[in-house]
Amino acid sequence: MHTKHEKYMRIALQQAQMAYEQGEIPIGCIIVSNTTEKIIAKTYNQVETLQDPTAHAEIMAITAACEYLGAKYLTDCTLYVTLEPCMMCSGAVFWAQLPKIVFGARDTKYGTIQYTQNILNKRVEVIGGVLENECKTLIQQFFKEKRE
Amino acid sequence: MHTKHEKYMRIALQQAQMAYEQGEIPIGCIIVSNTTEKIIAKTYNQVETLQDPTAHAEIMAITAACEYLGAKYLTDCTLYVTLEPCMMCSGAVFWAQLPKIVFGARDTKYGTIQYTQNILNKRVEVIGGVLENECKTLIQQFFKEKRE
Repeated sequence: MHTKHEKYMRIALQQAQMAYEQGEIPIGCIIVSNTTEKIIAKTYNQVETLQDPTAHAEIMAITAACEYLGAKYLTDCTLYVTLEPCMMCSGAVFWAQLPKIVFGARDTKYGTIQYTQNILNKRVEVIGGVLENECKTLIQQFFKEKRE
Repeated sequence: MHTKHEKYMRIALQQAQMAYEQGEIPIGCIIVSNTTEKIIAKTYNQVETLQDPTAHAEIMAITAACEYLGAKYLTDCTLYVTLEPCMMCSGAVFWAQLPKIVFGARDTKYGTIQYTQNILNKRVEVIGGVLENECKTLIQQFFKEKRE
């Protein structure tokens, strides 16, 4: 089971790498259909490029996946993201009725996916720490270069 | 001071009315520049039209205001919305660095703007209950018609 999550997280990491190359905080996201195992959205953080604070990878992935399916709910999907979702993205996960979230690195400052369940009393299966080191290293490298 | 908030909330209510006419849950939002007092974004909920669970009025207003300003922060703006912001939109308010939020009706089920400050430890001035009855009545009327 973990192997499958790692396989998909690696694809999310490729998206994060694309963000990195564009000077964005390197966070990538994909959404996979549980039934077909098809990837229906691949996105990365574009806050700087679009100058839009809502252009987090997860928001854009949810929008793209809903557009692909022609539906406003993603009840048969899993979202993979390289960093623990923030409050905004946790809320979007709730509204999209995503049943399962897999994230890579923990975000001790802004990560709020664990609060989501308390606040919204909604059961979302959350798996954290998949390829944690790779996901974290890429982000740390980005900020290290920024400071230099 | 309250008169100014009511003036702007009335414009947000006009946006909510447009949502209503399109079969959307009637929630409207505007963003006003504090310095110029110019309205730089007017939006309404478009979740059904776009089949996008992230297309809440506030998310779209923040995106539109940032595009207008060519900036990713709205540090000199006030957001007016007819319903208390949800978790997703509260998070977006945080990322946009909006210093002030004025809302109309309270949302006892999904409204989380009060949690935002606890979770994110960020000072956002929040004023609730402006034209509360008008804002609430429009939403109640929408759901009453839906049930009929």
